[in-house]
Amino acid sequence: MATFRPHFILLLLLLCIITFTQSTPLFLGKYAKKPNKLSSYKYKTQYFTQQLDHFSFQDSGNFSQRYLINADNWVGAQRKGPIFMYCGNEGDIEWFASNSGFIWEIAPRFGAMLLFPEHRYYGESMPYGSKEEAYKNSTTLSYLTAEQAIADYAVLLRELKQNLSAEGCPVVLFGGSYGGMLAAWMRLKYPHLTVGALASSAPILQFEDIVPPETFYNIVSNDFRRESINCFNTIKESWGELQSMGENTDGLNQLTKTFHLCGELKNTQDLSDWLSSAYSYLAMVDYPYPSDFLMPLPGHPIREVCKRIDSAADGTSVLDRIFYGVSIYYNFTGAVNCFKLDDDPHGMSGWQWQACTEMVMPMSSDPEKSMFPIFNFNKTYEEERCIRSYGVKPRFRWITTEFGGHSDGHYSKLPFSVLQNVSESLVALVTEEGAHHLDLRASTPNDPDWLVQQRVSEIRLIKGWIDDYNQGKGSAFSM
Amino acid sequence: MATFRPHFILLLLLLCIITFTQSTPLFLGKYAKKPNKLSSYKYKTQYFTQQLDHFSFQDSGNFSQRYLINADNWVGAQRKGPIFMYCGNEGDIEWFASNSGFIWEIAPRFGAMLLFPEHRYYGESMPYGSKEEAYKNSTTLSYLTAEQAIADYAVLLRELKQNLSAEGCPVVLFGGSYGGMLAAWMRLKYPHLTVGALASSAPILQFEDIVPPETFYNIVSNDFRRESINCFNTIKESWGELQSMGENTDGLNQLTKTFHLCGELKNTQDLSDWLSSAYSYLAMVDYPYPSDFLMPLPGHPIREVCKRIDSAADGTSVLDRIFYGVSIYYNFTGAVNCFKLDDDPHGMSGWQWQACTEMVMPMSSDPEKSMFPIFNFNKTYEEERCIRSYGVKPRFRWITTEFGGHSDGHYSKLPFSVLQNVSESLVALVTEEGAHHLDLRASTPNDPDWLVQQRVSEIRLIKGWIDDYNQGKGSAFSM
Repeated sequence: MATFRPHFILLLLLLCIITFTQSTPLFLGKYAKKPNKLSSYKYKTQYFTQQLDHFSFQDSGNFSQRYLINADNWVGAQRKGPIFMYCGNEGDIEWFASNSGFIWEIAPRFGAMLLFPEHRYYGESMPYGSKEEAYKNSTTLSYLTAEQAIADYAVLLRELKQNLSAEGCPVVLFGGSYGGMLAAWMRLKYPHLTVGALASSAPILQFEDIVPPETFYNIVSNDFRRESINCFNTIKESWGELQSMGENTDGLNQLTKTFHLCGELKNTQDLSDWLSSAYSYLAMVDYPYPSDFLMPLPGHPIREVCKRIDSAADGTSVLDRIFYGVSIYYNFTGAVNCFKLDDDPHGMSGWQWQACTEMVMPMSSDPEKSMFPIFNFNKTYEEERCIRSYGVKPRFRWITTEFGGHSDGHYSKLPFSVLQNVSESLVALVTEEGAHHLDLRASTPNDPDWLVQQRVSEIRLIKGWIDDYNQGKGSAFSM
Repeated sequence: MATFRPHFILLLLLLCIITFTQSTPLFLGKYAKKPNKLSSYKYKTQYFTQQLDHFSFQDSGNFSQRYLINADNWVGAQRKGPIFMYCGNEGDIEWFASNSGFIWEIAPRFGAMLLFPEHRYYGESMPYGSKEEAYKNSTTLSYLTAEQAIADYAVLLRELKQNLSAEGCPVVLFGGSYGGMLAAWMRLKYPHLTVGALASSAPILQFEDIVPPETFYNIVSNDFRRESINCFNTIKESWGELQSMGENTDGLNQLTKTFHLCGELKNTQDLSDWLSSAYSYLAMVDYPYPSDFLMPLPGHPIREVCKRIDSAADGTSVLDRIFYGVSIYYNFTGAVNCFKLDDDPHGMSGWQWQACTEMVMPMSSDPEKSMFPIFNFNKTYEEERCIRSYGVKPRFRWITTEFGGHSDGHYSKLPFSVLQNVSESLVALVTEEGAHHLDLRASTPNDPDWLVQQRVSEIRLIKGWIDDYNQGKGSAFSM
């Protein structure tokens, strides 16, 4: 069993998932394929009419929000059965519901109702009737914000509770990754509606100047270096090779062949992004057993990638090694004949919009400690890119104004103490074996001891919140 | 010295100020004249560019927010000099600054900077360049909300602190009436930016079904009944008289004469509203000494009104008595020759818009206990009225969703414990002598003992918040 090291910032960053397109974080983005097979968890799918704009009284209309609900284990309002609400992320809510087995597993012992509201502008919860209309321009997209999403969850919660006469039932929030940020933030902003939040792998400190911008890539790089220094060096070397080859006559064509791309490569940047994303995602889903969250993968996938890179026959070129390596991520099943670098026909994902508006997470890549291409986060560049791409100007300081995060001068402790509670339940993730969203996944016979222990702690924590609430101690209200 | 009775809900309601236009609360509204003479407090007037819409990324533009600042007593960032911020109400900020003498008086002992940001859409802080443009229609008015106003304060605070390298300085919030609600809500929503809030006379429980809708008018009525049962009865009787006379041939003309109106009375409702407002305002400013907050008034003005009503010569009609009575409120100086019932040329005040959108405070008038005209709050009626008047539909449950207020089932304690702290500092207001915003006013040689004590408690409370912050105990962050 690995030792516990409760270094919270590292935790947050380690588990933050991004693509490498010049510092735009993409949590569960375009290189992650949604599995067709969803789990066998049973739920009702329902729809709720939401105000598109909660914070002004312009007549901007409504939209239909999807939510999944399961009350099979609920002991009912009379007995104050708790409501477990998972704060939907930037994607189809069914996917998150199926990959949050932990919540399903613990529902019976708490007599809890499960609720999975979908995040606006994702999955089926599209304003303006369709994704095409919703993603049309910066005006239609303008209501895609974390604050509005959290307000959706709050309004839904109150309506549901009223309909069920369940006003007295305690609500526990869950979320992983961006959903974890939402859970933490909702607990902060709506303490009167919630008793606690289990925010897993939520990089809420990756804003403004709270942590050094190099931290994330350093940590991902370290995951590879730990497996093999040779693997780390080969990847680090590959960017130059890729660049040089791209500049040769016929170089792009050659790269297209080396990497088995379906279409002709137009520039080396696209390929760099594709490779960088794979490394970041691999750090995220570096589960100790075979899994199928973003992609079907073996256990310890980083180890497998590095094995391929390191053990290729003598004389194998750097770029060939790289291709063998990332094939673990993009083609573990061997079913893919050629790779598409960009599947998004609109060239615009919801998360990219969010990253260009409020969710600006400054990232740089350090020349020494990072295996990724070197670059520095640059506000002006970022601003120009966002105006060019989405017709919108990022608000660099908004998230920290709205949700905090700075230690405010002399404070050395964590800025949200809501997270001090939560951090207890996240500590184990910061082991050598930690991986994104891992504690929220269903248990398996292969779970390492530390993960089993981790979940025990989380259950104790949740029980504590509910007990406090029932005894009127008010973890809900004390400030 | 009166006894302390910490009945918080009563406090909140007692001090809530409204007009009587069928349950639309108007805190400091159209029948309250802004005094020309402002106090001698010295401040710099500055302007800050604010985002008109903090919660969407539509290009809705900016506006210039006025704020008043005084750093004469500030001990500076190095010594963590506190920042006292008054949350501007629905009116000209200079008025509130001059009527919050308490804050000015305690600044030196705390070495505090004073900051008075103005509420958007009031005073000089007009979006779209002018009041005319800002109040044009429901679209231009749509960003006039409490959430946006609080976000203004948060953004301003962070910018100022950054410019002064004062990030480590604790911020204490103040506010009275609607400004008190904003202070309480800002403390709830931005605990990372504030260490405490002194919310005076803030009726944050007057929403949805939290308190019985009759409570407010019952309390105001009781203030009159306590002075004289005859006074109470005369007022109660007067509405019928007024109604009957209005129905006579030439009745409206006769009423115009009786009440010395400048223009011809068009209907009895306008006159009823004007009278009701006076009674509500009188309860608000029932200070034990002469004052000039809403209007120049003698000390104990309700007592004076009732004296006039009760002591008119035998044979004086009910309506004449009423006129003599309310003249205390509308014409204490004797300078007014005739009365205008409605000074607002646009027929639309900012507060009325707010009351038709989110600040919906259900009010009814009880046939037994209230001296006001009888009516029941009616959602449908209210909705129709707001659509008719402002083209907007009220969101009856929004404030309680966003800011809480319900005791959530079995909780018997106050819903926001932020207010438990604050309530300590408000308790004294619930004496027989309590009046709106009283503790925030400058001290006078005539202050009753209980008020002096009240302020001592408040100072102790504020000192406690700041000490906790400086010792890292984090009243700012504990949740």
